[in-house]
Amino acid sequence: MEYRFLGNELSQFDMKNMTSEDRKILASELRDKILNTVSKNGGHLASNLGAVELTIALLTVFDYKNDKIVFDVGHQSYSYKLMTGRFNDFDTLRQEGGISGFPRISESKYDAFDTGHSSTSVSAALGIARARDLKNDNNYVVAVIGDGALSGGLAFEGINDLGISKTQMIVILNDNEMSIDKNVGGMSKHLSKIRYKSGYIAAKRSTESFLRKIPLLGNLLIRFIMAIKDWFRFIVYRKTPSIFEDLGMVYYGPVDGHDTDALISTLNAVKDINAPVLLHVATKKGKGYTFAEKNPSDYHGVGPFDLEKGIQKSGKETFTSAFGQAVIDEANKNRKIVCVCAAMSQGTGLYDFAARYPKRFFDCGIAEEHCVTMASGLAISGYIPVVAIYSSFLQRAYDEIIHDCCFMNNHVIFAIDRAGFVGNDGHTHHGLRDISYLNSMPNMTVFAARDYKDLRNILDHCIVKVKGPCAVRYPRGGISYTTALYEEIGDCVLPHMVADRGNDYALISIGVMCEECDKAFDMLSKAGLFGKHINLSMIKPVPVDEIISMLGKAGKVYICEEGIVSGGAGEAIRYEIEKKTDRYRFVPIAVENDMIKAATVARQREIAGIDSVSIYNKIVGN
Amino acid sequence: MEYRFLGNELSQFDMKNMTSEDRKILASELRDKILNTVSKNGGHLASNLGAVELTIALLTVFDYKNDKIVFDVGHQSYSYKLMTGRFNDFDTLRQEGGISGFPRISESKYDAFDTGHSSTSVSAALGIARARDLKNDNNYVVAVIGDGALSGGLAFEGINDLGISKTQMIVILNDNEMSIDKNVGGMSKHLSKIRYKSGYIAAKRSTESFLRKIPLLGNLLIRFIMAIKDWFRFIVYRKTPSIFEDLGMVYYGPVDGHDTDALISTLNAVKDINAPVLLHVATKKGKGYTFAEKNPSDYHGVGPFDLEKGIQKSGKETFTSAFGQAVIDEANKNRKIVCVCAAMSQGTGLYDFAARYPKRFFDCGIAEEHCVTMASGLAISGYIPVVAIYSSFLQRAYDEIIHDCCFMNNHVIFAIDRAGFVGNDGHTHHGLRDISYLNSMPNMTVFAARDYKDLRNILDHCIVKVKGPCAVRYPRGGISYTTALYEEIGDCVLPHMVADRGNDYALISIGVMCEECDKAFDMLSKAGLFGKHINLSMIKPVPVDEIISMLGKAGKVYICEEGIVSGGAGEAIRYEIEKKTDRYRFVPIAVENDMIKAATVARQREIAGIDSVSIYNKIVGN
Repeated sequence: MEYRFLGNELSQFDMKNMTSEDRKILASELRDKILNTVSKNGGHLASNLGAVELTIALLTVFDYKNDKIVFDVGHQSYSYKLMTGRFNDFDTLRQEGGISGFPRISESKYDAFDTGHSSTSVSAALGIARARDLKNDNNYVVAVIGDGALSGGLAFEGINDLGISKTQMIVILNDNEMSIDKNVGGMSKHLSKIRYKSGYIAAKRSTESFLRKIPLLGNLLIRFIMAIKDWFRFIVYRKTPSIFEDLGMVYYGPVDGHDTDALISTLNAVKDINAPVLLHVATKKGKGYTFAEKNPSDYHGVGPFDLEKGIQKSGKETFTSAFGQAVIDEANKNRKIVCVCAAMSQGTGLYDFAARYPKRFFDCGIAEEHCVTMASGLAISGYIPVVAIYSSFLQRAYDEIIHDCCFMNNHVIFAIDRAGFVGNDGHTHHGLRDISYLNSMPNMTVFAARDYKDLRNILDHCIVKVKGPCAVRYPRGGISYTTALYEEIGDCVLPHMVADRGNDYALISIGVMCEECDKAFDMLSKAGLFGKHINLSMIKPVPVDEIISMLGKAGKVYICEEGIVSGGAGEAIRYEIEKKTDRYRFVPIAVENDMIKAATVARQREIAGIDSVSIYNKIVGN
Repeated sequence: MEYRFLGNELSQFDMKNMTSEDRKILASELRDKILNTVSKNGGHLASNLGAVELTIALLTVFDYKNDKIVFDVGHQSYSYKLMTGRFNDFDTLRQEGGISGFPRISESKYDAFDTGHSSTSVSAALGIARARDLKNDNNYVVAVIGDGALSGGLAFEGINDLGISKTQMIVILNDNEMSIDKNVGGMSKHLSKIRYKSGYIAAKRSTESFLRKIPLLGNLLIRFIMAIKDWFRFIVYRKTPSIFEDLGMVYYGPVDGHDTDALISTLNAVKDINAPVLLHVATKKGKGYTFAEKNPSDYHGVGPFDLEKGIQKSGKETFTSAFGQAVIDEANKNRKIVCVCAAMSQGTGLYDFAARYPKRFFDCGIAEEHCVTMASGLAISGYIPVVAIYSSFLQRAYDEIIHDCCFMNNHVIFAIDRAGFVGNDGHTHHGLRDISYLNSMPNMTVFAARDYKDLRNILDHCIVKVKGPCAVRYPRGGISYTTALYEEIGDCVLPHMVADRGNDYALISIGVMCEECDKAFDMLSKAGLFGKHINLSMIKPVPVDEIISMLGKAGKVYICEEGIVSGGAGEAIRYEIEKKTDRYRFVPIAVENDMIKAATVARQREIAGIDSVSIYNKIVGN
């Protein structure tokens, strides 16, 4: 499709001078570009398709060169990127050195705040608005937040603080009734009540279309009426009062989020209200692409796919699917097992479990802290909750894991998906910290799965044998490498000798790093260096005596993990061994700086220096 | 005062058979015991005094041997402890080996869940209630949460999940209009609207007192009326709808929280409602002790004091007061400096700053995550926010510090009070993890202040010289030990030689550990071991070349810090040094397990093995 508008940097002036028809063309150009790019590069699709008209309206009413628009998470920022100078590079979306899938201040001065994790936008925008007030500036500050992100406690904390402040700021609630999965929670029900019972959109449309029929004066009249502060309340009988008003905000909406003209009128009407405003916008995730409209969860975050056919499920085994099957097998045997996730039954592989055992499955929404503390309540009552959360997101519950699980020694099992590098989502989504923070927690047992079978064994062991909190990490995607290192399930706690050819060095690999280390080991053998390669699944407690007896006379010990150095497995193993003997010298092979941007996982490992070649070089050069 | 009721373990049977008069006597006995104990041992006073009648009512209506009552934070659990078998040991409150100041499942099987950090009760109770439902049990589950704790996002996440569930569970909102300081935020305003505009309490009282006058039948009638679900709404004209109803709960209240009979009637009326219920109870912090009623903030957490005279402000300098003065001095010079705290302007020493610069001060409520992200919004707009939060509580914002500050390299300064052991509050409040998690964060600069002057220098350096996120930790209370180690402010980044007598060993002390290490150094010298003692304020980045040049020929290096081993300064220093030379052997002297219970800080250091004698022994024995 040839673009009439897209391709040029669009100024607010351009946007303001567009006709209604022009805007429709622009919207279809944006959708075309997003669909074509995402179907090639992968990315976040459904949420971006849903925010096209909203973004056009925002850039018409606000001056992105001066005003500040904070997109929550950033799953809806593609249109904004395309219209603020990143059209020409957009083909590099999520590729190494390319345009990030999330707002990045390092990429454009028009991105107001870096995002990636959920529910930060109100807080960040409030800080930005307060700074504006202190400076006596008069630019606008807007936070765009999805209804899913609203289930995160941080968003509530922000609204709670904003509501009492006198700060002029607009929060746009992009309500698509979804977080990543179907949205859950009291707030979501509250919003749908407003959305459906108010009859607002219908009323507004008929009024507007009536007014619009009056030539010339019509639009002026609409703007005039809009300017009356309580117009919405005047024409709409709202059965349900809004929670946002209770918290001190001025509430408007809901507005049809795919009616650009209505959005523009409304934004113009509310932008100068000297108080915190919440504008409720009703959108449809996946809008404009039938497959995505029908199954927005499947089209949330996607890999490359055929636009004509839609996503074809591969059926290929991954760590996620292996976990999903394993937890069902365990639950079939043991009715104490329950599962908890944070808005990601699909992403974490719990979808089938939820279907099979709906009463034993709890989707808490994007609310990782609550997931952990609630699970701990289940555990203290005799159940065995398996909490499945991506490594990067579990960071949100750092304090709760310590206080609500570890201190009480509660038997909660953390299934930590996306541990290690994640590829194209970039640095905000790497799972490089879990070993480090879990290692530091009292009573915690920590595993890193090496392959699917190892994962199944570990899960079983965690359920049957471990008494307190325990965690098993595993990476994004699948693995083809396997080595049968042990038979008995209980042996997952032991270090395993992968290969032993001498004492020139010892290489300890953690979990899936077995593969890279195995390759490095072969390269080293070819280069005449003969050592040992030991693989560990259980990181904490360190099986220290077993490791020492395996190390034998290899004086120099390299410990390789896909995680940060600080507090990592390398440091823990060394600490425990050095309590017993000072015979060994240790060199950690781990990630020093986790800010490694979008690229393939293989490239990210290279950049971090934990791929086979880097391991080889480190050992040869030492 | 001689106790008529208190002293025996009170069963629900005993409680149910009490007269109204008996309950008043019991309440005064509880207050007497709490006041006498806390004035000797220190503890949380105002909140506990406010919850006396509520606890009597809870134990009358519920069977603590079977039902589950989760107290949020635990600042209101003393009455519960006194009536559930801990009267005889209560004199040991907060002492080594004694009764904890917080609910502890290890102390009593009647404590439902360990607490200490805020806003966990709804989530924990929901987990417990869900487990009950899965088991088809029929016990009651109650969460008691203060209005302050309600500003924490975790509480919202819990209510959001609870609201949509069909779970039978009661949340008691203990609304005293305070968190630790005066409460803030939209929610607080919403609650006070309900509290004051509804005229509820007055209406209820007059109805009840009228009914009560009818002999025999009166109480029955009250119970009958109470049993009508919408009684409250029937007699009260509520102008303001409640946010809890919006979120799916059944709301009752507000009830006078010092009218035990009313509380009992209400609890009896609501306990069997087959839905999540929120009961709003209006209490007064400090109730029954005039000093505390007048200044509840001063009587939140107290040391020993004279009951007759009340707390006398000592005026003695502490790290907190030194920081409070220093930040004012800096703000006088630089109008970009703003301060942020989480409901603790007093505790963090920002009270005077807030009075002097009200527009530059932001109390975000108990909402550490929001504090950090909001501050980051201020920073990205050119301000220099100083975020003052206790070490233990800052754990809540682990993810936000990384994502919202460090990744963007925002110039946010973290003033981390209560770093290290905290004494009588026990293990839930130790600040032992900040070095560890901050060390792992990209772009972060980390300092540990050695004394007041060092703290002032570091703060100035962080404001003037550091460009990105930085943190300075300092312990609870004061220090009398000082050694002038350097003159120029900028030299706070350097390691400093405290004493150099030889190369038998080198001892690196971090921040305030200078004192214990200095003592150990003297003991070692007397024992004929002559080494070096180097003190570090800046931990990250490690001033590695300077350290190496100071270490010289001392082969064995001990690194002593008041923090956990895993990811600590010891490991960071070693890692950086070993990149340059393998000349040294390192031994960390740090805390292995942070679950060290209430005791004096000195004792806690002994138990952890980081006091002077332990340091001495470690070096002599190695």
